[in-house]
Parts: sequence; structure tokens; C-alpha cells
Amino acid sequence: MRSAAVVGTGLIGTSIALALSAKGVTVYLVDKEPVTALAAAAVGAGRAEEPAEAVDLAVLAVPPAELAATLAQAQKRGLARAYTDVASVKGRPMADIVDLGCDLTSFVGGHPMAGGERSGPLAARANLFEGRVWVLSPHPATSEWARQAVESMITTCGAYPLVMKPGEHDAAVGLVSHAPHVVASLMAARLEHAAELEIGLAGQGVRDVTRIAAGDPGLWLDVLSANAGTVADTLTELGRDLESVIKALRHLEAGGTEEASDRGAEEVLLDVLNRGVAGCEKLPNKHGAPKVSYVTLSVPVGDQPGELARLFADIGATGMNVEDVFIDHAPGKTAGVVELLVTPEVADLLAQSLKDRDRIAIEAPEPESTV
Amino acid sequence: MRSAAVVGTGLIGTSIALALSAKGVTVYLVDKEPVTALAAAAVGAGRAEEPAEAVDLAVLAVPPAELAATLAQAQKRGLARAYTDVASVKGRPMADIVDLGCDLTSFVGGHPMAGGERSGPLAARANLFEGRVWVLSPHPATSEWARQAVESMITTCGAYPLVMKPGEHDAAVGLVSHAPHVVASLMAARLEHAAELEIGLAGQGVRDVTRIAAGDPGLWLDVLSANAGTVADTLTELGRDLESVIKALRHLEAGGTEEASDRGAEEVLLDVLNRGVAGCEKLPNKHGAPKVSYVTLSVPVGDQPGELARLFADIGATGMNVEDVFIDHAPGKTAGVVELLVTPEVADLLAQSLKDRDRIAIEAPEPESTV
Repeated sequence: MRSAAVVGTGLIGTSIALALSAKGVTVYLVDKEPVTALAAAAVGAGRAEEPAEAVDLAVLAVPPAELAATLAQAQKRGLARAYTDVASVKGRPMADIVDLGCDLTSFVGGHPMAGGERSGPLAARANLFEGRVWVLSPHPATSEWARQAVESMITTCGAYPLVMKPGEHDAAVGLVSHAPHVVASLMAARLEHAAELEIGLAGQGVRDVTRIAAGDPGLWLDVLSANAGTVADTLTELGRDLESVIKALRHLEAGGTEEASDRGAEEVLLDVLNRGVAGCEKLPNKHGAPKVSYVTLSVPVGDQPGELARLFADIGATGMNVEDVFIDHAPGKTAGVVELLVTPEVADLLAQSLKDRDRIAIEAPEPESTV
Repeated sequence: MRSAAVVGTGLIGTSIALALSAKGVTVYLVDKEPVTALAAAAVGAGRAEEPAEAVDLAVLAVPPAELAATLAQAQKRGLARAYTDVASVKGRPMADIVDLGCDLTSFVGGHPMAGGERSGPLAARANLFEGRVWVLSPHPATSEWARQAVESMITTCGAYPLVMKPGEHDAAVGLVSHAPHVVASLMAARLEHAAELEIGLAGQGVRDVTRIAAGDPGLWLDVLSANAGTVADTLTELGRDLESVIKALRHLEAGGTEEASDRGAEEVLLDVLNRGVAGCEKLPNKHGAPKVSYVTLSVPVGDQPGELARLFADIGATGMNVEDVFIDHAPGKTAGVVELLVTPEVADLLAQSLKDRDRIAIEAPEPESTV
């Protein structure tokens, strides 16, 4: 690939432009707001001008609702030989594209699985897609040439192409991204009017459950609207379980006068809890490898500046690999506990190495089972 | 405090015994399974025998449903001058204690906010409570002496006493611990039969939302049963929002023929998303201090053994404090991105220091807004 155009120089578009420019591709930057394209050019993403002749690939980084019209217009003026998009929903935009009679041979839908994060060209970075999956949704009519052009762009960005049908993609992100976001929002919304004393008992658990609910509501409204059916299906199933759980809890609250019926309520709760455990086990830890049992080393740390840095230095000095890190603080106090997830074969060595450095490092089970 | 008895030498009981023994307190270990008390003694938690005379404090670390009977029996034989428990629910056990006619002057309910984690005396550790909050629920009839004895034990364990009424405590943990656990389970249960391709798109978001659902179902059944009403109340409110969200999504899925009605559906979604953001902002980052805006530095790392250790060494060498760490891996691939949360004043210095060590460190917004 020698030339590309990015239409829509927000965070994603500009990040792609930065990555391609860094690899020597000539990138043209186009935005309906000229100042936005100029800002992208100012951070080194390319030239804020229309290309004089057709480029190898045009990336249409516009909102899903605008995609079909933008593609039709670009194809009409012969902007590029191949086209792709970056929308986080694939089905509805593709239907719009077919409806508008766009040329399907030159178009491949795409969705980089990277943080949408802060918007705008100045938040862009060339490595935004480094190591991430990038879903490709070619249409049956898509030409091999167009597909290769888009795959080449993806690998140039440091990402990994993964081919999925639009419906498959939307079902997948509906389940593993959009529905979880709604669930996090629903739980977080319960904390809005919580008393200080209640919030004071919040630990890592509720923090993790609600973390993504802090995301930009406007952005998420667009995403949920474009994938409404899939998300509603998942939430409807979840709602059925929720109803059973509430009914079982109400029964137990009333105080079991009938033992048999109590057992029924407990079975309902156990069933949901067990299925939750099974669901967690489906999530790969990394690399799609089967979930391995990590060992947690708990290390108490003070909260003076540099304490965590000193701990990291000690860990680094051991040369051993830590898989994940959790940091827990007691509210209102100055001591904390850092939990290091490591593979079982590393655990003893790391614990000993930390003890040699006068640290307390105690093996505990996975933090998942924390009450 | 010079002497204590721990009744029920599971993880919590034995950990308390270890912490007290380490500070020179004579600790007697009692369990209905003698071998369990012997195991606790074997790891240095104290003596596996009944005290010959009344001890200063007895910690009743038994399941909530057994607490009242255990207390009544212990008081009858004069085991201690003061008594406490460690159950994660306070209201129902206290009602049982009053019903059984126990001496209330010598009893203070307690709940250490530490990981229940793996069970049994061999998983115990003296620092389990280090830096954690420990809720105290004295009864109006509780004597000052009993309360001081329990507070002394809490500080000896390295924890911080926080006084709450039983109902307040149960409402708080229902909201910030028990209901979030159910919500995580409900979402995780949706993943049980997910296809591999769907799971392949799972990122940090869904992992965080569902993480605690991996906890022991049997343990959580007990907790939810003992606090059923409070949890049901929170989930009922959540269920009302869920219903509105599903209805709004179904409306948007059908495709808006009426603009006005579409706006109504979008307003419903936006309202829940906005309240979710507000709820997240209530959660203190640490120390009960108002939430500060952290800056995220994103650092790409390979996945060779020791890569993370080397990164930690580099961070440690800068002497700067990292507030939190997130590690994201692309499924099936060998590169990842580590996100370091730091305070704004540290961000630039740390980024520069890492760059001086030939690392790419790019400032990004908080990972919360990741799509």
C-alpha cells in the first residue's frame, strides 16, 4: 500500500493515519470540519487535502449512521480502489450500504477492537491498535483485492485481522461488550444516591463490576441504538434470571416455614451462581489459551510516595513475570495490599525473592472468591 | 489483651489467631472438628485446647446461622469476658442472639472487610486484615469494656474499626458487595454457552464486570440468604431500570417511524447511562478522598517471559508512584498493552522517564471510556 485517505479524522481515523504515515504510506486527511483534518495533519498524521487521484485504500471513520452516504459519495468521485470503515456495529450500516446501491466489490467492513477512549485527533496515537484484534466483515461480493488492501492496513497498524460476518460480529460485541456495559451502568446507577457510610465499605469487587459504566454516555447511546436488538436479547435473558433470583431472595427473606420450598429458593440462587462461575471460566485469560489457575501473592505496602514503585522495582529485579496486578486500599487509611497474579511455577520463587528483599509476600487463592 | 479464644478455626478465625499470637497474646483454638483446631495450632495460631479460665476475648468465627447458639453456649460456660463474631451479615444473627436471651453486655458484632478467599486454617495468614476496614456493630446494651476489647483486637490485627448499626452494615454490604456479586453472576451466566468467536472479542470490560462471579457459590448462597431482603430491594430497583432499557432498545430495534417516540427511547437509555456515570463517581479511588482524575499511560509490551518484570523494574527505577495497573492482551497473539494509572503531576515525568529507557509510553484518558 502506497497511498490512503482517512475520511473522518477523529481518534480512530487519526490513529490509523498516524500508523500508516509512520510506515511511509502517503495519507490524505479529510473531515467535514476542515479544522479537524488540519489538527490531524499537525500531529503528523498526513496531508489535510483531497488526493488528486484514486488512493489504494480509503478508511471511512465516520459514525455508523453516516457510513452508507459517505461511502456512496466517495465511490461516486472515485476516491479509492478499496474502502473500509471502523464502526463498532456492522449489520445495520451494511444493510444501509446495500440499500443505497454502493459498489460492494470494493468495500470491506471493519472494526478495530481498541479503546474508543477520548475523542478527537489530538488524542490519537500510532500504537492504538498494537496487539489488538481488528474484525473484518467482507460482503460475499467483496473482491479479493479490496480484502487484501484492508488486511494490509490492519497489519501495518500492528493489529490482527479476524474475519466475521456482520451478524456474528454484532452478536459477539452485543454479548461481550454492549450488554456488559448496560449491566455495569445498571449497577452503578444504584450507587448514585448511596450514603457515604455505604460507599465506605466498597471494595475491589463493586469497583470492577461498575468500572466501564464511567464511559461516555453519548457514545454508548449510539452504540446501543445501532445494536439494539442483540443487546435487548441478551438483557431479556438476563432479566429472566434476575426475576427468579429476586423471587428466591424474597422467599428466603420471608423466613422459610416450609423446608422444601426453602430448598427450592436456594437451588435457584445456586443455579445462577454456578452458571456465573461457568461463564467466567469461558473467558480466556489471554492468548485464547485455556484458563490457567494463577496463584495470588499478597504483598502489604504503605502509601508513602514511591512505595508501589519500590515494590515494582523489587518485582522487576527478580526477573519473574507477573500476569496481573490488583491494588486494594482501605478507605481513610494509609496501608494497602497489592495482589500479584502469577503462574503456579513462579509463585514460590517470587515469594521467596520478595522475602529476601524484606517483603511479606503471602500466597493466597485467586481474588475472585473474595467475599 | 493477654488471652483470647478463637471458636471456629477456619480461614478468618485462624488468621485472627495468627495475628494475635504474633503480638504475644495467648490464643486458645477451638473447633467442632478437633483436627481443624490442631491444623491451626500447627501453623502457629495458638494452642488447640480449651482455656482453663475465662479469656479476655472470644472470637466466634462460625457461620451466621450457628452464631447465636455458639454464643449462648460459650457464655454459659464462661469462656470469655467479651465476645465478638466475624459474620458478613449482622442483622439476622443479632436478632437470633436477642431471641436466645444471650448476655448482650459482653457481645459486639464484627465483620472484617477482608477476603473470605480460600477456606480452612492452612490458608490463613497473619496479615489478612492489614489495612482493611473492620465493621463493629455494638448493641445498645454492649458494655464499654467489651467494645474496647474488640477494638483492641482489631487494631492488633492491623485493621481499622468502623462502627455501624447491624441494619446499616447489612444495607451497605448488600449494596456494595452482595448485589454487585449477583449482577456479575447474571452477566457471567450469559457467557456460559457463548461461542468461541464471541468470547474471542472479549476485552477488559466484560472481564471486570464478571470477575467476582467466579467466587464460591456455596459461600455466596449463605451470604445472599442471610441478607436476602436488602439484596432483593437493590435488585428490584435495578430490575425496573432494566425493564425500561429493554423496552427502549426494542423500540429502537423496530426502527423509529415516529421521531418523537424515538427520542423518548433514547432519553431512557441516556438517563441510565448518565446515572451510571454518576454512580461511578461516588466510588472513592482510595482513602475516602474525593475521586481524582488519573492519567493513563499506555505502554506496549511483548509477551516474552520477564517482559512485565522488566517494565516494573523500569517503573520502579523512576521512583514514581503508580496508582493502578491494567493489563490487556490480544487473544491468540503475543503483544499486549499495559495501562498505568498515575496522578496528572506524575504523568509527564513518568512518560519521559520510560521514553529515556527506550519505552513507548503514551498518555491516554482513563480506561473507563473504552468502547
